[in-house]
Amino acid sequence: MSDQRTELSRLGEFGLIAHLTKNFESKLDSTVKGVGDDAAVIYHSETESTLISTDLLLEGVHFNLMYMPLKHLGYKAVAVNVSDICAMNGVAEQITVSIAVSNRFPVEALEELYEGIKLACEHYKIDLVGGDTTSSLSGLMISITAVGKAKTSEITYRTGAKEHDLLVVTGDLGGAYMGLQLLEREKEVFKTNPSIQPDLDGHDYIIQRQLKPEARKDIIGFLKELEVVPTSMIDISDGLASEIFHICKASNLGCHVYDEKIPIDAQTSLAAIDFNLDPGTCALNGGEDYELLFTIAQSDFDKIKGNPNMTVIGHMTDANDGIYYIDKNGSAIELSAQGWNHFNSDQE
Amino acid sequence: MSDQRTELSRLGEFGLIAHLTKNFESKLDSTVKGVGDDAAVIYHSETESTLISTDLLLEGVHFNLMYMPLKHLGYKAVAVNVSDICAMNGVAEQITVSIAVSNRFPVEALEELYEGIKLACEHYKIDLVGGDTTSSLSGLMISITAVGKAKTSEITYRTGAKEHDLLVVTGDLGGAYMGLQLLEREKEVFKTNPSIQPDLDGHDYIIQRQLKPEARKDIIGFLKELEVVPTSMIDISDGLASEIFHICKASNLGCHVYDEKIPIDAQTSLAAIDFNLDPGTCALNGGEDYELLFTIAQSDFDKIKGNPNMTVIGHMTDANDGIYYIDKNGSAIELSAQGWNHFNSDQE
Repeated sequence: MSDQRTELSRLGEFGLIAHLTKNFESKLDSTVKGVGDDAAVIYHSETESTLISTDLLLEGVHFNLMYMPLKHLGYKAVAVNVSDICAMNGVAEQITVSIAVSNRFPVEALEELYEGIKLACEHYKIDLVGGDTTSSLSGLMISITAVGKAKTSEITYRTGAKEHDLLVVTGDLGGAYMGLQLLEREKEVFKTNPSIQPDLDGHDYIIQRQLKPEARKDIIGFLKELEVVPTSMIDISDGLASEIFHICKASNLGCHVYDEKIPIDAQTSLAAIDFNLDPGTCALNGGEDYELLFTIAQSDFDKIKGNPNMTVIGHMTDANDGIYYIDKNGSAIELSAQGWNHFNSDQE
Repeated sequence: MSDQRTELSRLGEFGLIAHLTKNFESKLDSTVKGVGDDAAVIYHSETESTLISTDLLLEGVHFNLMYMPLKHLGYKAVAVNVSDICAMNGVAEQITVSIAVSNRFPVEALEELYEGIKLACEHYKIDLVGGDTTSSLSGLMISITAVGKAKTSEITYRTGAKEHDLLVVTGDLGGAYMGLQLLEREKEVFKTNPSIQPDLDGHDYIIQRQLKPEARKDIIGFLKELEVVPTSMIDISDGLASEIFHICKASNLGCHVYDEKIPIDAQTSLAAIDFNLDPGTCALNGGEDYELLFTIAQSDFDKIKGNPNMTVIGHMTDANDGIYYIDKNGSAIELSAQGWNHFNSDQE
């Protein structure tokens, strides 16, 4: 090791991956897409490719067992990976689940975790096909790899958006983020006075958005029925602004996004106001909604028009036009990506 | 969570995986093999299936950075997964690498790790196609998933051995275990007196067996050339005895293994004697050699006869005959599996 010491926080999570993998070149014919999209693409034929996506979830970094029941955690861990396969316009079929766990967990706790994993496998119709189990020196860690398939010609990369394409989002945004704020607040109240019951009444939707998010496998089915192949797609794990940035950068385009078009549930808005937050900002920067963000050719607009699951929130522009958020007053604000960055925390 | 508390150590690593996944049934046509072999098998056609294998490596459990340089660790992490794909008679083509790392590591340390990963990718001709990077609260954790392919009809499962088949092992055994003993001893010496240089002269082979094991991809090539399809195969990660048990149990057979046939390198024997250990026991119970153990029909014996890379060490018998180790005096000793069991340690 050289004497130089560069702190991890200087690069950030995305910067670190890019930095460490920059000298890796894919050499095999079967590797269509390596690092840099929601999943890797392995070619078999024009009619079939395999999609591979992987995620690492750590206690204290990605989840807090104080308010995240293990069953929900298991479900969410699977859903998050299925979502990555959806973002390639594919269908997840298999997963592997590896866990590292400290002796502080009894077997019964892991049974709960696997109950959630099983529920998700049944819901998304996927098979658990492998994994590794080991002890850890601290806490719980889950590593999941999802394997999916797609018709090679219908795979949606982040790179495929074209100027004038419409930017579409599924479902509604900001709910998972507000659910997290609420759970964090009740945790603090509980710490101060354990006799006070958590006040989550009327917040069931946003709590569920945080604790039991769903991958939008249904959307992939709708798109097939409607005969729409998005020109690009990504799932919203880090927040709308961050994902828009990824698509713009990968496709070398700019974008106009309209605040008034962004779908936000009433419960999300009310909770945001209660926390003195702007609902639009929560929808733009809050992560973990696991909705899909995609672009379609304008000629496909009639096919999705009126579909309650999909909302057009903007359109793609030339890269030189920049990435703009048009607020309710019609003012254009240049967007900055504010995804989660685990390395900027002070955790050791 | 119920009030019952069952300690993880009561089940052990293999027991825990089996217990947690016992209610998972594979339902998709594409899932040929799920949990329970070296890799999962996903069917595409008679001429092609995808193999998926995954491994979790934790600092303090699977590796010790005090004597394992990060570059070696990166290489080994890849080799171990390639080995699993070899054990299915397949060829690894892609890997994903996820790491969780604490701020105690500078970027330069991770660069070293990835240098080793890159070397292994080049050596085994595989592409790095994805991964996840996150901060951890303690230490370094590596999760690797290997993706390989095989002709569907030539995939070797643990379940396929037949009575009278020959049991064959590649290379030599016990070296990695003796390398570890040596490194552990020098670590203790160093702790007591840091001015003493480690005495590893003449032990380069067994040190390399521990620090830079190779997956036997070459053997898969030899077998193809020789037109031998093993009836069953497994890689030796936990130790010969343990792997023999896996094949016998999966194939519902017994086995006779002959001590005098087990290939042991002279350096391994000398080191064992130096440590007052029986070389045969080290070869039988020491792990991490990553050689291949397989069974072939007797009719294939002429094809492998005289090949310096493969040694017949025994033959398969009826399950009722049991699993026996025949020592140098001709005495038959019933074997007990003694694989690594990470959960039996006292670590929290």
